[in-house]
Amino acid sequence: MSVWTLTYDGYDPAQERLREALCTVGNGYFATRGAAPESSAGPSHYPGTYLGGYFNRLCTEIAGREVCNESMVNMPNWLPLTFRPEGGEWFDLDSGAYEILEYTQELDLKKGLLNRRVQVRDAGGRTTTVAQRRFAHMGHRHLGALETTVLAEDWSGVIEFRSAIDGTVANTGVNRYLELDSVHLEPSEEGFDGALSWLAVETNQSRLRIGEAVRLRVHFEDEPVEPEFEYRTHAGHVSCEFAVELAEGSAVTVEKMVAVFGSRDKAISEPLEEARVHVARCRTFDELLVYHTLVWDQLWRRFETSVDPGDGDRVGMVLNLHVFHLLQTVCQNSIDLDVGVPARGLHGEAYRGHVFWDEIFIFPLMDFRLPSLTRALLTYRYRRLNEARRLAYEAGYAGALYPWQSGSNGAEETPTYHLNPLSGEWKPDNSHLQRHVNIAIAHNIWSYYQTTADEEFLAYQGAEMLVEIARFWASIATYNRALDRYEILGVIGPDEYHDGYPDAEEPGLDNNAYTNVMAAWSLCRAPEALDALRPYRQRELWERLSLEREELEAWDDISRKLKVPFHDDGVISQFDGYADLEEFNWDGYRQKYDDIQRLDRILHAEGDTPNRYKVSKQADVLMLFYLLSDERLAELFERLGYECTSETIHTTIDYYLARTSHGSTLSGIVHSWVIARRDRGRSWEQFVEALESDISDVQGGTTSEGIHLGAMAGTVDLLQRAYTGLNPREGVLWFDPALPDAVRELEMTIRYRGMWLGVKITRSSLVVTSDATDSGVCQIGVHDTLHDYEPGQTLEVSLS
Amino acid sequence: MSVWTLTYDGYDPAQERLREALCTVGNGYFATRGAAPESSAGPSHYPGTYLGGYFNRLCTEIAGREVCNESMVNMPNWLPLTFRPEGGEWFDLDSGAYEILEYTQELDLKKGLLNRRVQVRDAGGRTTTVAQRRFAHMGHRHLGALETTVLAEDWSGVIEFRSAIDGTVANTGVNRYLELDSVHLEPSEEGFDGALSWLAVETNQSRLRIGEAVRLRVHFEDEPVEPEFEYRTHAGHVSCEFAVELAEGSAVTVEKMVAVFGSRDKAISEPLEEARVHVARCRTFDELLVYHTLVWDQLWRRFETSVDPGDGDRVGMVLNLHVFHLLQTVCQNSIDLDVGVPARGLHGEAYRGHVFWDEIFIFPLMDFRLPSLTRALLTYRYRRLNEARRLAYEAGYAGALYPWQSGSNGAEETPTYHLNPLSGEWKPDNSHLQRHVNIAIAHNIWSYYQTTADEEFLAYQGAEMLVEIARFWASIATYNRALDRYEILGVIGPDEYHDGYPDAEEPGLDNNAYTNVMAAWSLCRAPEALDALRPYRQRELWERLSLEREELEAWDDISRKLKVPFHDDGVISQFDGYADLEEFNWDGYRQKYDDIQRLDRILHAEGDTPNRYKVSKQADVLMLFYLLSDERLAELFERLGYECTSETIHTTIDYYLARTSHGSTLSGIVHSWVIARRDRGRSWEQFVEALESDISDVQGGTTSEGIHLGAMAGTVDLLQRAYTGLNPREGVLWFDPALPDAVRELEMTIRYRGMWLGVKITRSSLVVTSDATDSGVCQIGVHDTLHDYEPGQTLEVSLS
Repeated sequence: MSVWTLTYDGYDPAQERLREALCTVGNGYFATRGAAPESSAGPSHYPGTYLGGYFNRLCTEIAGREVCNESMVNMPNWLPLTFRPEGGEWFDLDSGAYEILEYTQELDLKKGLLNRRVQVRDAGGRTTTVAQRRFAHMGHRHLGALETTVLAEDWSGVIEFRSAIDGTVANTGVNRYLELDSVHLEPSEEGFDGALSWLAVETNQSRLRIGEAVRLRVHFEDEPVEPEFEYRTHAGHVSCEFAVELAEGSAVTVEKMVAVFGSRDKAISEPLEEARVHVARCRTFDELLVYHTLVWDQLWRRFETSVDPGDGDRVGMVLNLHVFHLLQTVCQNSIDLDVGVPARGLHGEAYRGHVFWDEIFIFPLMDFRLPSLTRALLTYRYRRLNEARRLAYEAGYAGALYPWQSGSNGAEETPTYHLNPLSGEWKPDNSHLQRHVNIAIAHNIWSYYQTTADEEFLAYQGAEMLVEIARFWASIATYNRALDRYEILGVIGPDEYHDGYPDAEEPGLDNNAYTNVMAAWSLCRAPEALDALRPYRQRELWERLSLEREELEAWDDISRKLKVPFHDDGVISQFDGYADLEEFNWDGYRQKYDDIQRLDRILHAEGDTPNRYKVSKQADVLMLFYLLSDERLAELFERLGYECTSETIHTTIDYYLARTSHGSTLSGIVHSWVIARRDRGRSWEQFVEALESDISDVQGGTTSEGIHLGAMAGTVDLLQRAYTGLNPREGVLWFDPALPDAVRELEMTIRYRGMWLGVKITRSSLVVTSDATDSGVCQIGVHDTLHDYEPGQTLEVSLS
Repeated sequence: MSVWTLTYDGYDPAQERLREALCTVGNGYFATRGAAPESSAGPSHYPGTYLGGYFNRLCTEIAGREVCNESMVNMPNWLPLTFRPEGGEWFDLDSGAYEILEYTQELDLKKGLLNRRVQVRDAGGRTTTVAQRRFAHMGHRHLGALETTVLAEDWSGVIEFRSAIDGTVANTGVNRYLELDSVHLEPSEEGFDGALSWLAVETNQSRLRIGEAVRLRVHFEDEPVEPEFEYRTHAGHVSCEFAVELAEGSAVTVEKMVAVFGSRDKAISEPLEEARVHVARCRTFDELLVYHTLVWDQLWRRFETSVDPGDGDRVGMVLNLHVFHLLQTVCQNSIDLDVGVPARGLHGEAYRGHVFWDEIFIFPLMDFRLPSLTRALLTYRYRRLNEARRLAYEAGYAGALYPWQSGSNGAEETPTYHLNPLSGEWKPDNSHLQRHVNIAIAHNIWSYYQTTADEEFLAYQGAEMLVEIARFWASIATYNRALDRYEILGVIGPDEYHDGYPDAEEPGLDNNAYTNVMAAWSLCRAPEALDALRPYRQRELWERLSLEREELEAWDDISRKLKVPFHDDGVISQFDGYADLEEFNWDGYRQKYDDIQRLDRILHAEGDTPNRYKVSKQADVLMLFYLLSDERLAELFERLGYECTSETIHTTIDYYLARTSHGSTLSGIVHSWVIARRDRGRSWEQFVEALESDISDVQGGTTSEGIHLGAMAGTVDLLQRAYTGLNPREGVLWFDPALPDAVRELEMTIRYRGMWLGVKITRSSLVVTSDATDSGVCQIGVHDTLHDYEPGQTLEVSLS
């Protein structure tokens, strides 16, 4: 086993959809799911062979459950390619016409290349080996390539191929969405000319045009073949058949290159025209692969986090797989696009491509590896600030309120109804009351600025967002004269099991601790950001936002008086009244159901509700300890007139850990994190469990609907920050290593304020190195000691 | 007269097209030509009332002269609004039905607001006053507003209004293009609902969708009116009529707000839907105006250059007008768009919106005022680097060759034929041989970097472009063994009068001095840029570009051995063999023709060609003295093994000044610049003449086809850099003031490496100030003395 390959031996139709999702290859612009060698070239869509991508980030309203939106739309499928030895049936792994002798699938993470090899025997007794390689080009984002080599092991004769581009694809990847509209593309144009074929489609709501052009290239080893291509077109579909003569023991290779363009692309004329021109110009598979591999190499230089020994190569491989999936969704190719981070990647249809708060688990990794990408993704939010202002305004608040779920125009897209697949019932979905998405955005802005010191970003985007978010918190907070406290009423925290009080008519909870504490934090950051600006920009912003001193005074006041609820025993309450809820019968339910991760669905199906119980889907209060260090939290609580001692934190962690079902893949990350210093062994166990979320599909079926990007990036970030104590703050890069017992050594390269620092941590020492020709100086803090650091220096600090 | 207003009194139909161009209001996203109050609301397009804008940056091929391209396409016109007192004719300034008693048009440069007031009497003897205000919102780039107030001076009764949105517009603004296709929009959708109406169109080649929605609001002073709107729609057109009752001496106001969106916009769903939503939400004219004015205010803080006394307010007003036109074409609203700087602004159809080399006259101003805009505009070039690589490849060269004319996909769009309006003949157009556009881009990259020290830009865009441009020069240069020199053969310099040798079969000239010297300069900058990168990025780039040491050695060699031709008398020759050309009979032609700016057309019409004569359209060799200081040039010539003394420069300037017709508005800028230190009086005269280029339409008709942005920005930059000696180089901000006698004092605020510096220059002193709370330090050099400078300091240097 290597840390660089995900391998599957043997063909297992039951596992295909999961493997497809895990073996998707993408380049930050489009992604191609890693399905078995394409069996169908006919007009019907072969499930799972679609492309997802940038064009899909469209926006529509979702009116109740009537209208499916377009934010995740399959693109025309360019992968269909099949063959038949003369007189045989078209090759299809699932049809039974071919006996599968051998099957191997291997995702080469290092190269971003999916390899597949299958040996089959047909009804005529002919043995044929098919080897397929494919990639979405990391250096030329509009290009993809599929190479198929067919070897006639023990026969000779004519072999026919059939290739197609299929624009009649639909969104059928998520069973519970099948009731919704699934066809979003309208055919617009089809055509062919020699080895080139093409089609254009238009999305039916957002009216975006997608052009795809395919070029076929056929050769025996080094000798090109020029078969006669016979085309057939109908609306949204172009197919092509051709035949070549194969000698026994010889092989023929078909290269299928695609170029993909859409209306929103820059530096183009018309998408189809660009696709045709680019695919006609592009080089051969092997030639394209060289540059593709180089670009992946360079990415890995930035992103590799190596851990020795972990639990053997498994940990290393899964970490690399996670980085791979993150980068195929967003990477340098996404920087110049207007895209956010969809929770389920580019290629999963679940959540319809919507953007949630998952960024908070993803950006910290990016901040230290590819900060220009974080900036681009924060700019995505900045472009939608006016829509967030609108949402706040319509909800009766000031400032900006980012929506819980959003698509391309940044409007609120949270469905108002949600299907419970257990009961088949549609229930009201109140999750738009998760105002805490505003916290995630403020926190991400601040973290990016701390890591990069990017003044320009703060001046032209960051500070404005922080101010509008502060305004929102100041306006939603209501003063309670009796308590002399501010309260935030009627919201939902990250724990979606609780969306209201049992038997209350209106949804929403009061004084969610996470929300209130982080609202206070946000109210402090906005003035800090304003003060950090250069005077001319400060003046411009004050004028543009009509800021007044009194407003900042109010923020200061509220940030000192927000209420934080506690249980009598010193535990921070998830919200007002949490202590009054009933304890849940965990053992009983664990006996009754195989899997209680989604207790909400179970309870609702039973006519009950989790609102009655002390039971959480995922970390809620504990998010505080994930986002803020103990010291920072103590300061913040002190500012609020409360005490948050190590004891408070400890008790609170234990309390909630015992009452969480981990119904979200994000939960394991947070739990592993918050006990990283308190219980290293258990933290490591949680970490290893979190690593398995997608690769082992622990939620039973959700991975095939799309991998979970937040959890993927979060595991890598656990190594990067939790076990190293890495924390950039007020111009100092702090470390406070606490390696789990299972880890002997951890190594990574991080970017901090323009410099690249090599970091190596063992149980006994921390070593920071850099290139002597780099420039800049920084301060590095280890535990409580500050070290001045210059490029070329080797800083070694003993940890024993 | 104020420096902030351009005023016209009296209606003059003959002047209307010029005034329209000069009174255009835009916001960096779209522009609305400042035509007279709209007279027609019918389906026919009223010339001159169209919008130009971002959508227009489309790309097409221009196949000979058969196909007009789309890079400048009029957008649906939202301005039509007219009225009639009951029983009267529809108001039309030109129909003769209304006697014009009074007419004033005033462009408020400070506010970006066009005001118009007209008093008319109709056939029924009724006197009516119409006041109109309009703006393209500088703070909300999708919004425009037109307010029309009609006062019944001496009558009462019903007044009818007719308003429309017209998508049937065509490109008819340039007479000599009328043979070409002029209709580029296809109607797609029309609709209305109460006070809202809308339409969508699609461009017929690039398939971009444009959505426009209009909202009407009618009121008497403070009292809203809700008339009944009667709509009529047909393909590409929506019109609306309504009537209100007016008492004598009372006025009614109609506000017409528009929202404009297109396929390429970010953070949107479908353009028409966005337009409808945004116009429905937008506030009243007066409310929108407040923020619009604030944003213009902030822009003026950055861009105002005040000169006392100049030649009275005229100089100040024209300078402000020039800044105004520049900012309405590109400003902070353009930063997030993928746009270049079209030579004739957003609203002129001449040159079809193409991008040339004019940036070289525009970016230096931006570098010191709004550097993030320069960066965005250089990024526009970076996105088209692959296309430039392609162009070099197809022309048989290595590296990248930016096209002489380009549209949205960055391909070469230079027409291959050109119409001579004097003779009506189509002549081959060889101007694509102006390889020197590559110099402009390299120079702009380097200047931006020197002014801003923007490492990120250099690392991720700038250095790569510089390398590819160096590669191009290295590959086009051919070694001449006899001379032991490299030569660049078969190109054209900035002087377009010379596109080949008289009687030669192939076009192109050898060893254009400007090209060769600046190619050497470019070959030096690429390695310098690579060396300035941090080590990790250096490595990445060397790998990606497959750079080898040998290649850099070759650049070094070529940069020392490029040939520069001289006349025997020590004058730098424009190209090999220039000395052999005939002297031109200037006096004879000045007597024969009123205007000899476009001598090329005159000579061609006479069956002759400027290729035979020592006659230049515009600065060519002299560009060297414009781009490089005497010291730098001396160094560069020394490197090349030549001498460039003060005497050489002097003689060369005099030589070409006597042989130039100034057939380009850019010429005056360069000429004023190169003599700024040698003959201050004449330089100032040239400057004042250059100021008049557009406002007085000195080329007789070209301004109405679109203002000349390069010349506009160039005049402001003359004050900014030529007369101040401002020059950022190797970390020092140099000054070397040489105010013309006519100027007592010059004042401006410039941005340098993040700081804002107030600069005030009189004949006796230079004073630099800044805000004490700004951060950073820099070195300021005056003449030969270096001064360390910190924020808050007042640096005063005596110049006497």
